[in-house]
Amino acid sequence: MSGDEVELSGRLAAARRACGAAGVDALLVTPGADLRYLTGYAATALERLTCLVLPAAGDPTLIVPRLERPAAEASCAPGAGLRIVAYADGADPYPLVRQALGGDVATVGVSNRMWAEQVFAVRAVLPDAHLQLAGGVLAGLRIRKTAAEVAALRQAGAAIDAVHAGMGRWLRPGRTEAQVAADIAAAIRHAGHASADFVIVASGPNGASPHHGTSDRVIQPGDPVVVDIGGVMPSGYCSDSTRTYLSGGAAPGGFHDSYEVLMRAQQAAVAAVRPGVTAEAVDAAARDILTAAGYGEAFLHRTGHGIGLDVHEEPYIVAGNPLRLEPGMAFSVEPGVYFPGRHGARIEDIVVCTEDGAERLNRRPIELATL
Amino acid sequence: MSGDEVELSGRLAAARRACGAAGVDALLVTPGADLRYLTGYAATALERLTCLVLPAAGDPTLIVPRLERPAAEASCAPGAGLRIVAYADGADPYPLVRQALGGDVATVGVSNRMWAEQVFAVRAVLPDAHLQLAGGVLAGLRIRKTAAEVAALRQAGAAIDAVHAGMGRWLRPGRTEAQVAADIAAAIRHAGHASADFVIVASGPNGASPHHGTSDRVIQPGDPVVVDIGGVMPSGYCSDSTRTYLSGGAAPGGFHDSYEVLMRAQQAAVAAVRPGVTAEAVDAAARDILTAAGYGEAFLHRTGHGIGLDVHEEPYIVAGNPLRLEPGMAFSVEPGVYFPGRHGARIEDIVVCTEDGAERLNRRPIELATL
Repeated sequence: MSGDEVELSGRLAAARRACGAAGVDALLVTPGADLRYLTGYAATALERLTCLVLPAAGDPTLIVPRLERPAAEASCAPGAGLRIVAYADGADPYPLVRQALGGDVATVGVSNRMWAEQVFAVRAVLPDAHLQLAGGVLAGLRIRKTAAEVAALRQAGAAIDAVHAGMGRWLRPGRTEAQVAADIAAAIRHAGHASADFVIVASGPNGASPHHGTSDRVIQPGDPVVVDIGGVMPSGYCSDSTRTYLSGGAAPGGFHDSYEVLMRAQQAAVAAVRPGVTAEAVDAAARDILTAAGYGEAFLHRTGHGIGLDVHEEPYIVAGNPLRLEPGMAFSVEPGVYFPGRHGARIEDIVVCTEDGAERLNRRPIELATL
Repeated sequence: MSGDEVELSGRLAAARRACGAAGVDALLVTPGADLRYLTGYAATALERLTCLVLPAAGDPTLIVPRLERPAAEASCAPGAGLRIVAYADGADPYPLVRQALGGDVATVGVSNRMWAEQVFAVRAVLPDAHLQLAGGVLAGLRIRKTAAEVAALRQAGAAIDAVHAGMGRWLRPGRTEAQVAADIAAAIRHAGHASADFVIVASGPNGASPHHGTSDRVIQPGDPVVVDIGGVMPSGYCSDSTRTYLSGGAAPGGFHDSYEVLMRAQQAAVAAVRPGVTAEAVDAAARDILTAAGYGEAFLHRTGHGIGLDVHEEPYIVAGNPLRLEPGMAFSVEPGVYFPGRHGARIEDIVVCTEDGAERLNRRPIELATL
């Protein structure tokens, strides 16, 4: 067994123990981060069913469409001890799911992101089983990253930092957001990502929309520009980092003041991270500073989200989440301020909770850079 | 109302009529192609609920996270008559879904690709409703493309053709598949796509895996290389086209013969397309030729898939599908042959069924090109 296979076998065993503890007889896991976490197989979610059948007691089976069989066999899945069963186009794969369970099951956990059409088809072949979400069983595993996972996130952080470091080559007045974004997307791949998954280039008033993508707006001198970018590394682990730039020229009135407060808020939230602190306390560390300065209403989202094989996963750094941080938990710290019709700003780093604080996985300066 | 808004209002009205005909009281539509089709809003599927609530009788509502409100308002959704309701991070959005239904509902259709965690949450707030898939209601709308939709697919086809036309700049012996793929991904964006969604560069033996992505394998002289690429245009409509290239050098034994048969099979399937012909007959047109030449086992997948706002959607061109083609149905015709341990080949064009035949939306030559 390779190191990867040993790690995967350990995860499968841990998932089965977690099933036992949760009173779940089996998990059904379709393509996505859970599948990649448990099997190493990076399948794409498509209309043909691919499904890991993982009984709490009994051998795991990976059901795949026939044309995906070579890709599944080339992944870590066989080395991790998975039997692969393929079906031809046009055949119904759901009886194979029932068969792979190896007997009657009372309670079955399905991936949180399994498609409704698959959930309904599973229910049809297992009419007497109680279906629940697999997330409750698996989240406890994925939320604490191992040293190997932190190393993979560290690599992802360095790769996206390299893209931000080159921003001066692409972002300048007179170009459209979409032109800048196309160059950034290419740079994300060239920096070592397997794919560029999101590129937000939000200039001037577009910066007031936190999830603006790009547009044909021409960047103007003096525009604040929010650049929120990320991709997936060959390891499967994600990057996600935001910087706000000033596009050569005088910033709009009030911008510098809000950016100054935003920097303090982001630093305070990072400084608050250590074992035992709650997720909501980290959110409050950023929010209290912005609120005290009169920017509470302008900070219209949570402070962060976990990151790993999914770009958004637990833990969520949000008011109302009493989860206590533990070493190995990795998440974004990304306060922002948004002024409709005018501009916006956001600063985002990924951090991982350590034994006694936090390690920043993004290392670019957060001070405003003028390009 | 703009032209887009008129088209969208028509779609919403058609969806409500289809609900009435199917005995469904309301549809719940989460991000994906159904949402974009009905509202023009290209939301990303994330952990925060975004959901169109479309009662068969009553006003439609779009429920969005607060930070997505500006993006939703900037889309066509408000112009198409949708009320937008936003909720703050940390708030439970599902009571808003129930409220937007405007009264008791007996039967509710949920998007086919709604996540299981959302399906379970909907069930919890509507314990007495019967949930079924919205696909049965909506597929009849989306499967027949309007002239505007065909025009959008034609643009997508031309854009991906332009990338294939430039392949000689990137694909050559001595480079890795991943290096070539990175250049292709950049070219897909530069050709006008909003994103590069898949780039398969499968050289030599990797070509025997239909859904191989890329790898660090160095392309060798004489390798057949399967290049299957596509992206999403700013319109939301997808491109998808495959060509097989010969990387300078003598092809492996038997390759030319199988490629010759593959060309004939692909042409025969395109020629079979016209109104009234079944999907399975188009599949058989390609398969019979390959089988007669001894390549039946090597053609291990269906002949094609529909395409539109999803890269794979109905109609599926597969044995066992008796659906009769109608004008406006758009789909891929992509037979392939795969020889484990040796090589593979595939030729893929998107076609649209017309009043009296088929229009090919990809126009690149299918003859083997040596690069």
